[in-house]
Amino acid sequence: MKIMVVNGPNLNLLGHREPGLYGVRSLEQINQKLTKLADELTLEITFTQSNYEGALIDAIQSLRWSSDGAILNAGGYTHTSVALRDAILAVEKPVVEVHLTNPGARENFRRQNFLTGAVVGSIAGFGPQSYELALWWFYWQVHNVGTV
Amino acid sequence: MKIMVVNGPNLNLLGHREPGLYGVRSLEQINQKLTKLADELTLEITFTQSNYEGALIDAIQSLRWSSDGAILNAGGYTHTSVALRDAILAVEKPVVEVHLTNPGARENFRRQNFLTGAVVGSIAGFGPQSYELALWWFYWQVHNVGTV
Amino acid sequence: MKIMVVNGPNLNLLGHREPGLYGVRSLEQINQKLTKLADELTLEITFTQSNYEGALIDAIQSLRWSSDGAILNAGGYTHTSVALRDAILAVEKPVVEVHLTNPGARENFRRQNFLTGAVVGSIAGFGPQSYELALWWFYWQVHNVGTV
Amino acid sequence: MKIMVVNGPNLNLLGHREPGLYGVRSLEQINQKLTKLADELTLEITFTQSNYEGALIDAIQSLRWSSDGAILNAGGYTHTSVALRDAILAVEKPVVEVHLTNPGARENFRRQNFLTGAVVGSIAGFGPQSYELALWWFYWQVHNVGTV
Amino acid sequence: MKIMVVNGPNLNLLGHREPGLYGVRSLEQINQKLTKLADELTLEITFTQSNYEGALIDAIQSLRWSSDGAILNAGGYTHTSVALRDAILAVEKPVVEVHLTNPGARENFRRQNFLTGAVVGSIAGFGPQSYELALWWFYWQVHNVGTV
Amino acid sequence: MKIMVVNGPNLNLLGHREPGLYGVRSLEQINQKLTKLADELTLEITFTQSNYEGALIDAIQSLRWSSDGAILNAGGYTHTSVALRDAILAVEKPVVEVHLTNPGARENFRRQNFLTGAVVGSIAGFGPQSYELALWWFYWQVHNVGTV
Amino acid sequence: MKIMVVNGPNLNLLGHREPGLYGVRSLEQINQKLTKLADELTLEITFTQSNYEGALIDAIQSLRWSSDGAILNAGGYTHTSVALRDAILAVEKPVVEVHLTNPGARENFRRQNFLTGAVVGSIAGFGPQSYELALWWFYWQVHNVGTV
Amino acid sequence: MKIMVVNGPNLNLLGHREPGLYGVRSLEQINQKLTKLADELTLEITFTQSNYEGALIDAIQSLRWSSDGAILNAGGYTHTSVALRDAILAVEKPVVEVHLTNPGARENFRRQNFLTGAVVGSIAGFGPQSYELALWWFYWQVHNVGTV
Amino acid sequence: MKIMVVNGPNLNLLGHREPGLYGVRSLEQINQKLTKLADELTLEITFTQSNYEGALIDAIQSLRWSSDGAILNAGGYTHTSVALRDAILAVEKPVVEVHLTNPGARENFRRQNFLTGAVVGSIAGFGPQSYELALWWFYWQVHNVGTV
Amino acid sequence: MKIMVVNGPNLNLLGHREPGLYGVRSLEQINQKLTKLADELTLEITFTQSNYEGALIDAIQSLRWSSDGAILNAGGYTHTSVALRDAILAVEKPVVEVHLTNPGARENFRRQNFLTGAVVGSIAGFGPQSYELALWWFYWQVHNVGTV
Amino acid sequence: MKIMVVNGPNLNLLGHREPGLYGVRSLEQINQKLTKLADELTLEITFTQSNYEGALIDAIQSLRWSSDGAILNAGGYTHTSVALRDAILAVEKPVVEVHLTNPGARENFRRQNFLTGAVVGSIAGFGPQSYELALWWFYWQVHNVGTV
Amino acid sequence: MKIMVVNGPNLNLLGHREPGLYGVRSLEQINQKLTKLADELTLEITFTQSNYEGALIDAIQSLRWSSDGAILNAGGYTHTSVALRDAILAVEKPVVEVHLTNPGARENFRRQNFLTGAVVGSIAGFGPQSYELALWWFYWQVHNVGTV
Repeated sequence: MKIMVVNGPNLNLLGHREPGLYGVRSLEQINQKLTKLADELTLEITFTQSNYEGALIDAIQSLRWSSDGAILNAGGYTHTSVALRDAILAVEKPVVEVHLTNPGARENFRRQNFLTGAVVGSIAGFGPQSYELALWWFYWQVHNVGTV
Repeated sequence: MKIMVVNGPNLNLLGHREPGLYGVRSLEQINQKLTKLADELTLEITFTQSNYEGALIDAIQSLRWSSDGAILNAGGYTHTSVALRDAILAVEKPVVEVHLTNPGARENFRRQNFLTGAVVGSIAGFGPQSYELALWWFYWQVHNVGTV
Repeated sequence: MKIMVVNGPNLNLLGHREPGLYGVRSLEQINQKLTKLADELTLEITFTQSNYEGALIDAIQSLRWSSDGAILNAGGYTHTSVALRDAILAVEKPVVEVHLTNPGARENFRRQNFLTGAVVGSIAGFGPQSYELALWWFYWQVHNVGTV
Repeated sequence: MKIMVVNGPNLNLLGHREPGLYGVRSLEQINQKLTKLADELTLEITFTQSNYEGALIDAIQSLRWSSDGAILNAGGYTHTSVALRDAILAVEKPVVEVHLTNPGARENFRRQNFLTGAVVGSIAGFGPQSYELALWWFYWQVHNVGTV
Repeated sequence: MKIMVVNGPNLNLLGHREPGLYGVRSLEQINQKLTKLADELTLEITFTQSNYEGALIDAIQSLRWSSDGAILNAGGYTHTSVALRDAILAVEKPVVEVHLTNPGARENFRRQNFLTGAVVGSIAGFGPQSYELALWWFYWQVHNVGTV
Repeated sequence: MKIMVVNGPNLNLLGHREPGLYGVRSLEQINQKLTKLADELTLEITFTQSNYEGALIDAIQSLRWSSDGAILNAGGYTHTSVALRDAILAVEKPVVEVHLTNPGARENFRRQNFLTGAVVGSIAGFGPQSYELALWWFYWQVHNVGTV
Repeated sequence: MKIMVVNGPNLNLLGHREPGLYGVRSLEQINQKLTKLADELTLEITFTQSNYEGALIDAIQSLRWSSDGAILNAGGYTHTSVALRDAILAVEKPVVEVHLTNPGARENFRRQNFLTGAVVGSIAGFGPQSYELALWWFYWQVHNVGTV
Repeated sequence: MKIMVVNGPNLNLLGHREPGLYGVRSLEQINQKLTKLADELTLEITFTQSNYEGALIDAIQSLRWSSDGAILNAGGYTHTSVALRDAILAVEKPVVEVHLTNPGARENFRRQNFLTGAVVGSIAGFGPQSYELALWWFYWQVHNVGTV
Repeated sequence: MKIMVVNGPNLNLLGHREPGLYGVRSLEQINQKLTKLADELTLEITFTQSNYEGALIDAIQSLRWSSDGAILNAGGYTHTSVALRDAILAVEKPVVEVHLTNPGARENFRRQNFLTGAVVGSIAGFGPQSYELALWWFYWQVHNVGTV
Repeated sequence: MKIMVVNGPNLNLLGHREPGLYGVRSLEQINQKLTKLADELTLEITFTQSNYEGALIDAIQSLRWSSDGAILNAGGYTHTSVALRDAILAVEKPVVEVHLTNPGARENFRRQNFLTGAVVGSIAGFGPQSYELALWWFYWQVHNVGTV
Repeated sequence: MKIMVVNGPNLNLLGHREPGLYGVRSLEQINQKLTKLADELTLEITFTQSNYEGALIDAIQSLRWSSDGAILNAGGYTHTSVALRDAILAVEKPVVEVHLTNPGARENFRRQNFLTGAVVGSIAGFGPQSYELALWWFYWQVHNVGTV
Repeated sequence: MKIMVVNGPNLNLLGHREPGLYGVRSLEQINQKLTKLADELTLEITFTQSNYEGALIDAIQSLRWSSDGAILNAGGYTHTSVALRDAILAVEKPVVEVHLTNPGARENFRRQNFLTGAVVGSIAGFGPQSYELALWWFYWQVHNVGTV
């Protein structure tokens, strides 16, 4: 099973940006850790990051032929992008939405979430572990572990 | 008369994406059909598609020196892009807004339409024929056909 | 194929009413032009206009036994009539919504549109040509012209 | 006791219109059934239906001298007519609001109800039996049946 | 100078309807009093009343060829009729809006006023004298009385 | 057929609480009257009342194995309880919503109604007779009386 | 009968300020004209103008012992002053609200009107004649002229 | 480490209630599966379910002395309970919010979420696996597994 | 005079819960202090606390036969309970609303207050002294102290 | 300890203004009573009243050097004055907000309260006793009476 | 060129009031610095400050005959004063709006800005340098410096 | 000191686009003028413009290592980009927001401003001089000129 991790705007600054809020780990460190976990779970994993809404849409569209699912942290586009929502609906692969923090606990404009109605599920608030929990869920889909 | 057909995010997936909603024809098939109609109407026609908001703005700006008008299906950016609206207002060429489905009949967030106040006219709900109707309208402008 | 053109309140004043906004042609002139186009397209066409919401509902209901579809410009009732919407949903014939101007580009209270969710498609902003485009669309339905 | 049953826009299409939603009985059949029930209850019953808001206002006003109460299904005007509300308040006879379906369970714009604050009571969601329940209520007013 | 007094829904019930709120005078008494005042002011005056929105639109449209201005009490349609607003804008004669009570002091849904942006001026809250003040204003237009 | 009458918060105070608004009969008197009517209609009837939202949810859930339907007056929880709405949707027995007064005619916060989208039908404004009308409706379901 | 004319902020600039919107007459000219009309009507008239909200409240409060009523143009305070509304309610003398233009036809924030629910009546849109119409109304109160 | 699983209203009906939406497993089956997983992870686990808002608050408060954290599915109270939010804030133990489905993808009133601002993190949309992911997260806290 | 002090959800945690916000005193300490003050003022005082909305409604209802008034801190239910409001209106004894902090100065959802329109008066922001001020007020009612 | 009692617009009319709502005592009588109570509590007390928002701001600013705290009834400015809120925040002395009636129980526009987030605490609904309760609170601050 | 610096409510407390937010400089120090800069730029400069809305309106009105422009920091009145907006529109001199902090970054009620639509331009967030930047702009208007 | 001037969508059309609104100078002319001013102020200046939201985010992120601050005119993205706001917050260099016109004075959707809460300060409405004022401000930061 091939999983693509898609990170949106400003996540390339992780570790540098407001560490009190987003943690001290860089995106590279998080990705290395995820790669290691994926190896243990015998999942293939790829990474992409962009500050461009269009590039994220391209990435989600590419799921169709390149991957079996995606873990998506769309950053600020979560709250403003109808086009990204449409891309998730258009591609018929499972997408899991993750966030480092809990957007519902922050500014009002982060309450509007265009993606939530299009994804399989959402995991928010656990820092980098939000990604890991999502990876476990994909593992369970393959191995029928974790289901009753 | 040169007309540019500008398609926005996810329209490259037409035919593959939710065919029950958007129809079974691919964007290529629609474009071929439009090319044939344009030939009959002796209009020049060009095509562009992008998932990037910025690329759509570039395309609309390029009307100034490259075309006499545009048929624009901005997809999800219809509902979120003030910048695209500003581009339409800035370029002094007629732009016709088209939609395959009727956005007003769908989710609430598709009621907000930033383009409608900037375009010449809007055609929505007729599937690929929305584009064809727009092409006829451009034809009438040239030939003074269809006006009283 | 028989098409009924249904015009709502104040459209009987066309040509007299704010010509800068709505054009200099009278409703009679527009209707004559449409008749001529319908003849060319071998469509039967009838006309009705009323300032009464109830009369427009009667007209739409009469589609059931008298016509194959309607071109409807509901004027101000577009923005206030749930009953007219219900009539369009109740009668099982295609109704195309047309507007001379683009209501989305005008006052805020013209943003509320009760008809859009009930009609086949909408054409707005092209002046009297909005009606003609609608007529062409009906022609295509009969002759399978214009579809891919 | 004389009861007037007042039906609003599109209720003349009952049985023909979206039978999955509104049932297969025509308004005539419902009225016959109500007539029979009224006979059993020794109530006089009359019927009126109109697609015109003004005609419904006229009907409600006529209660003053012609009837002892009304059963009103105002259809789509329920959600848009301040004038009909004023008519109910102006005539000093009991008016019972009925609906075949439960408007509160449908589109958002059916949540606005101008009549509810002016009528004696409301019965919604029981199909044609909504009218019959209303008729029983009028019967109880005459015969003091059903009150503690 | 010919003035048409146009009364909307339920105003035919004046004197009978909630006299504590609307006063004890019937519409006929008010009209007789207005006729007498018009005679003194040497203005021609005509009267029309209807419960139909369409009939009020017809009346306002007829100003064009039959009168020099109108005094309009649109009752409940004041708050719901975009079409009536359009009619006032379409006819190029002065229309004065009057109300017996002050709608701004009543229910919230009476705060929405579609007419106010289209009329010359508004007079509200003075009971039947609202009409008389409007008549004086027309008199001043003819005789240049009352202007500085 | 077994019907459970479920009364919510403060209905135990009926007869004592604002009798001008809610009437002079106590809940016991209403229940006795309903029992007598149920006997005549050969329906079994049981009663429960609680001021606890959780207890009302328990009661509605118990319909599954103990009754064939419910008459529910949820009092103030009508306007605030998503959980009660979910309970009605979860149990597959018909629930009729009743109110003594017409909540739509009272304070604004009584306009929000979470139950209306989940119940079979609603009866409001007829005082204790709201319950009796609901009982008759259940009777009709058993005996096919009252349907066309 | 003594009438106080109370003018609010910026009305001292009349004639100088946006004459296209507010007219070319200065406040002094309007007051002179009103004085002459008051003389003819044998009404005593006094004038006050202030840019201070508190001064307008003082003026309205002073009605209690100094005048029989007021004509109030509160300018911009119309839309923001709860305290001025309270003053009108507190003093038991009739206050007539006047405006030169029709605030309902201007910016959205001029739709909020705190005074309308507290005054006897409102006259708006007739330029300086709004004041004169108000003066006539006071005259009618004294002489019982103008009432049926 | 001791984890309390707290289930709110209607979750006792799982497996029986709308299985198409909520799945075919009963709460007992889910709890057995969770117990087995907890055993593997050497976590102690206890379960509580109630339809009472107050009982859920009691349960959350009891975390203080009885457990090291909670997995909370508050069902319908998620959207209406400020008091439950306050309880989570008051007890200083980590609470993870879980949902079987994605509330953000359902009715509008499920968008209001009082708990999200008070919990450690949220997991929604994965069916019974939402609970299991939460359990893994608690396991990681103890064993420092899963963190970079 | 007998006064019942009714405390709502989470107030049993006082002293333990966010002491920076709510203070370091436990509810027991506050109650002891109030008992002492009540003794000095020769008022009888009883206490009740519950996390259940239904239990608070029961307590308020019990005022009818057991007490002469209540001091109510409804905690989070202040902002969500229509049923508690109805209970206060139903029982004809004075209820004083108290809060330790000033809810108007906190999150937006604490601005909605269903109780304020039903209580005699409100005291907020003075910490435990809010209760004491309420007790003094009851004392004044008995002894006519403190009134002019 | 020196306390300044600051009264806002229209409170000078107390006793004269709507006595059914605001009571029969004049502001002078209330102030005398407060003076007497202050004497008993050995507090210095001064009084100021103004209908000017600016004067109230001046008064609050003067707290800095002239008093130890204020009791503020800002009347209608409570609902409209950001500037008064800023003054309270700017001066570092305790301000207690009082109201004779409970603004939350009145018109909607009285729900907006700019002061509540800036004051120490609020007391509303107890008539003139609201001031007295505030005075007691200041007394407790000095004498450490009333605290646990 | 003569420039008037107009400061609104609470700006007289600068340096004393929340220095962390507004800085440690007093208004006098800021004015001295501005005077020095004005001297260097050979601009005449005058200062006025008031806590009264009316006084600020008077000051703006006085621009007409006394100055060539104004730098206005209206403090809290920025968000509530329609009358001040009207004054700026009425006087035909350039007014530059300045703020020490960025109101858009603070409480929600500071988002409403009545002045922005009436001023030449706005400068916010630069502390006392906001005034200096405004002064430079006036200098450029005289000397044609700074324009392309 | 190195300053980056970042211009967003459509600003490349300056001078060509609606010159009545945005002025006749091209972006190149403005940039030349700014370069000259920067030279005089001995500031280094670089320029970037893009129609892509992602490119603007990249530019702002690049401040971290390439510049000491930015002057940002985000055009239409000002009103729709949460991601751009996050970028400004993430990079720890001062960003000054500039606009040629005053967005607060234009369409309603230009009132929403996501950047204002993240930037150091805002300058709007002065045409190309908005940029020059921003440049001066940076100059003052280096040279301590302009501060008191």
